[in-house]
Amino acid sequence: MHQLLSKIESAIQLHEMSNAELEQLGGEIREVLCNLLSTRTAHFASNLGVVELCLAMHSVFDFRTDRLIWDTGHQIYPHKLVTGRYHEFSTIRTRGGLMGYPNPKESEYDLFMTGHAGCSVSTVLGLRSGDDLLQQSERRSVAVIGDGAFPSGIVYEAMNNAGGMKADVTVILNDNKMSICPRVGGLATYLDRLRTTPFYTGLKNEVVRVLNMVPVLGDPTERFLAQLKEGVKAGLHGGMLFEDLGFRYIGPIDGHNIAVLRKYLQMVKNLKGPVLLHVVTEKGHGFSPAASDPVYFHTPPAFQVENGQPAPKASGGSKAFTHYASDSIACQMRRNPKVTVHTAAMCQGNKLEPVRDEFPDRFFDVGICESHAVAFAAGQCKAGLRPIVDIYSTFLQRSYDQIFQEVALQNLPVVFMMDRAGLTGPDGPTHHGLFDIAYMRVFPNMVVMAPADGPELSAMLEYAVDHDSPCSLRYPKTSTSDLQRERPPIELGKAETVRQGDDGVIVSCGALLSSCLEAAEQLAEEGLQISVVNARFIKPIDTEMVRRTVTESPFVVTVEEGCLQGGFGSAFLEAASDAALDTRHVRRLGIPDLFVEHGEREDLLADYHLTPTGLVAVCREMAQGVEVSGAAH
Amino acid sequence: MHQLLSKIESAIQLHEMSNAELEQLGGEIREVLCNLLSTRTAHFASNLGVVELCLAMHSVFDFRTDRLIWDTGHQIYPHKLVTGRYHEFSTIRTRGGLMGYPNPKESEYDLFMTGHAGCSVSTVLGLRSGDDLLQQSERRSVAVIGDGAFPSGIVYEAMNNAGGMKADVTVILNDNKMSICPRVGGLATYLDRLRTTPFYTGLKNEVVRVLNMVPVLGDPTERFLAQLKEGVKAGLHGGMLFEDLGFRYIGPIDGHNIAVLRKYLQMVKNLKGPVLLHVVTEKGHGFSPAASDPVYFHTPPAFQVENGQPAPKASGGSKAFTHYASDSIACQMRRNPKVTVHTAAMCQGNKLEPVRDEFPDRFFDVGICESHAVAFAAGQCKAGLRPIVDIYSTFLQRSYDQIFQEVALQNLPVVFMMDRAGLTGPDGPTHHGLFDIAYMRVFPNMVVMAPADGPELSAMLEYAVDHDSPCSLRYPKTSTSDLQRERPPIELGKAETVRQGDDGVIVSCGALLSSCLEAAEQLAEEGLQISVVNARFIKPIDTEMVRRTVTESPFVVTVEEGCLQGGFGSAFLEAASDAALDTRHVRRLGIPDLFVEHGEREDLLADYHLTPTGLVAVCREMAQGVEVSGAAH
Repeated sequence: MHQLLSKIESAIQLHEMSNAELEQLGGEIREVLCNLLSTRTAHFASNLGVVELCLAMHSVFDFRTDRLIWDTGHQIYPHKLVTGRYHEFSTIRTRGGLMGYPNPKESEYDLFMTGHAGCSVSTVLGLRSGDDLLQQSERRSVAVIGDGAFPSGIVYEAMNNAGGMKADVTVILNDNKMSICPRVGGLATYLDRLRTTPFYTGLKNEVVRVLNMVPVLGDPTERFLAQLKEGVKAGLHGGMLFEDLGFRYIGPIDGHNIAVLRKYLQMVKNLKGPVLLHVVTEKGHGFSPAASDPVYFHTPPAFQVENGQPAPKASGGSKAFTHYASDSIACQMRRNPKVTVHTAAMCQGNKLEPVRDEFPDRFFDVGICESHAVAFAAGQCKAGLRPIVDIYSTFLQRSYDQIFQEVALQNLPVVFMMDRAGLTGPDGPTHHGLFDIAYMRVFPNMVVMAPADGPELSAMLEYAVDHDSPCSLRYPKTSTSDLQRERPPIELGKAETVRQGDDGVIVSCGALLSSCLEAAEQLAEEGLQISVVNARFIKPIDTEMVRRTVTESPFVVTVEEGCLQGGFGSAFLEAASDAALDTRHVRRLGIPDLFVEHGEREDLLADYHLTPTGLVAVCREMAQGVEVSGAAH
Repeated sequence: MHQLLSKIESAIQLHEMSNAELEQLGGEIREVLCNLLSTRTAHFASNLGVVELCLAMHSVFDFRTDRLIWDTGHQIYPHKLVTGRYHEFSTIRTRGGLMGYPNPKESEYDLFMTGHAGCSVSTVLGLRSGDDLLQQSERRSVAVIGDGAFPSGIVYEAMNNAGGMKADVTVILNDNKMSICPRVGGLATYLDRLRTTPFYTGLKNEVVRVLNMVPVLGDPTERFLAQLKEGVKAGLHGGMLFEDLGFRYIGPIDGHNIAVLRKYLQMVKNLKGPVLLHVVTEKGHGFSPAASDPVYFHTPPAFQVENGQPAPKASGGSKAFTHYASDSIACQMRRNPKVTVHTAAMCQGNKLEPVRDEFPDRFFDVGICESHAVAFAAGQCKAGLRPIVDIYSTFLQRSYDQIFQEVALQNLPVVFMMDRAGLTGPDGPTHHGLFDIAYMRVFPNMVVMAPADGPELSAMLEYAVDHDSPCSLRYPKTSTSDLQRERPPIELGKAETVRQGDDGVIVSCGALLSSCLEAAEQLAEEGLQISVVNARFIKPIDTEMVRRTVTESPFVVTVEEGCLQGGFGSAFLEAASDAALDTRHVRRLGIPDLFVEHGEREDLLADYHLTPTGLVAVCREMAQGVEVSGAAH
């Protein structure tokens, strides 16, 4: 099995392989991907799409010294398979196993650990610049970036810079006509035009010489010459957008034809100055269910490898926060015609398809452009609408400055839905949303909330949409049950006491409330009666709750799924300090000062005492006046 | 005096004026600008450059209902003068007076308070979208953006979005060939080409009809027709870059010819879909010293209006932190050939001209592209260099996500010089750097330092350049003296005790140390002996210092020029809490949860007890066990 693939210890072996062998290798890689990824949620269609591109690149360059950055990094699987990680590949996205993204600790072939889109051209340009200054000019520099990430502003900043510097960098545009969802914007239309208008390659003489006779997306010389003439005659400079930024544009070429890829890559390898090679691929190529529905197969749940049908599920399970969010957004849009919703290419991840279909005029997908998304929403808000910006906690980091200037400074009532706030699981450190409490609560005018369960999310969103200043809600990537209880209405800066007890108090911020309650019940069986407070508001924090819990409880444990530096626990300490309270019996639980690896959320939470078992242990020891050992700080 | 200008109560009056009257008005505005701005530091050359553009716009549009955003906003002065603020204009940039940037509280003509570059197209697109949904489609939407801000990634994100939406927005590219410093990058070259290649306007038939006979940058019809023919023949589609994004490109036109401007603006007002009007202006136009040195006259110190020569100065004064930084950077570059320096169009503000001149190969100005700057530096660092990123605290907010992913997550030893950290003075809330402590200290691997004076800045930079993980230094826009004392070497996470006393302690974070020492001396005269600790490190904080001061001092006052939420004082409380210390006698001074207005730094500091007088008052009352009243919380 995997006759060729199993023998590859280093990608340098690909240099010696024939096109036919590389094609066979590609087939074996697809087999690995289909067999393994049908068993677990992982990035699938995008990896199928770059198999040939990956093999051709490694057969032309030597990326032990040459520089390669896969933008975003979710399409790194074929690369991992041919850079010495075939035998460990079954561990991918499991705790302690391979990451689903590039990881320099795994291999010298991975330069940057990434997961956020768009920075590849910048880092490759930096590597190029560094290699030049350090007299390593023979090293080549290549970024591979999908057309989904391509509209990110930083790509344009980097291309503008590279063009101005006339740097020897190669940008490979992997054009599969898709972001995760179908891509949007003027650039998308432009790329479509490039694919359909006469072939044009920004040809200079030496390029013509090399290219002569190369078959391009079908038929050879004749079509090429005819189209070149046609192109010049009509003044249709395909790729002019890139040429105008100082790049030489070449393509589009067929990204599944290894012979063509190798020839073109060999050519661009020897070109000076910035080059953009436009490669057309099919997302999901080679597995027909994925090719015909690449949105679903971006990160599909387990499926049957014979036909792509979903694997039978264990059980229904409870509803995810994300589903509550999507339903609540739809509900607000029905209630108030001024409400709009914004996503940055995460329509699928945010489960917004039904919202998009019901309210096509009030649904906005700007592509992977979080900075613009926030400023755009601020403009809508100024015009009198009530925009909801639905972006993952970690990706919203891209909008820090727009949240500051365009929203908070203007005191515009934009609502932020920070999905994936907390430990996101198998995606790992680039995707965990651990900083949003700390970054949101510094901004004047900003209200920061954390719902404890699905119904509370709905209530908070309604509160936020009616509130007259910016609001944000954070919630994790997990399911939530309706924690049955009498629910007081949402009131600005008011916490909710969910359970009463005299022996100590847990102040829970957000979705860990259910674990806190579970811990309290276990402790009750031991005879310890613990209060559980649902903080609801991170900002403004309930100062009366802080005073009461600190002064009346034998101990206080604050619980949050976020970084401890500047987090909810710190806000709690600040409030206590402002009230000159003694906080020696306060203990903050959360994520300490490190990047958390990938793994199942529950396993990761356990490391930081954030499961019922961990919470029980901490409370028990607080009650005994003994501090629990371990990683919590 | 100012015969026309003094009578303008609303910009709508400009609609009735002849071209000759508008020209006279422009002359009066220039007179006001020269006379007033020669007396104080303010944005000067950029305002001189847009006088005619501003008047022409207000004479064609009605911006009480139409939407106008001046990108960045530093070129807003002529706009303020014709929108009812002439009589208050002498108060500009003084406390309680007019802001030097747009301010919605001053006028309905100002829509967004801005100061950071590049968001105008996004907000205008949002306004357009909002107006459309709210059935206000007759309102026009116009963004005016300089070619300095134009390469910012968010502009591209917004144009891509506008192109895709086919939205009716007008973007006016105010092309003066300058950022603050001369602009850089491939786009700059492209714009130069547009100015010199045959005139082309992306003409469709109706445009040809309207434009026929309009004189363009000089000579009329003949040149126009000849060039149109030439342009089509050669396939030289000027503006193709913008057309490719879905914009109709028109220009370039003369931005100092009111007749031409009015005609073109009238035309674009009636065009459907996204339009980019390329207007060529001269920065400093009408005041020859400024036109010939627009870098110096961007925000010149007081000058003689007769000849532009600097006004005689009161005294030499002491050296600014920024100057220490520039000198220290040069020193490190001499010491270590791997050190590079990066600026985002702030070569002048950061006083890096001598560094650029001495080390042209290791100096990088990427333009107003902070996101890219950080990722680019990270790439260099990965290649083995030691990049120093020199960006104002407030503008570095643009790089939050790149600091996270490209630097901290990789643990790359990039050094951040966060200039203008603290209250920057007359620029106001968009420019105060109050959040950097809170945003930098959340990132694992990041070291955060705050030098107390110039020599300490130098020592910390040397420490940072030699350190093996990312480091940041924050320092304010003010002068610094060498605080004479025995200086222990910089040691990771170690504070410095500068003064000993048993009655209380001030823990100073950064440049306010001199004020703290002054306060301690005054208190000593009253018989109160106060220790003064120079924290040096925000992260890692000196936990032993925290323990010692909290347990041994009758009171502790932490002092920082930054936001109290998540700031240094919070880090102090976190450390004290981790050590289970009683902190009832700890008081945090800093900037409370609000946006601080513009004004002189000293005046603003006084509001928050951050001057010697304020510190004395706080300490005195802490010593008496009485809390001081006022705005400190």
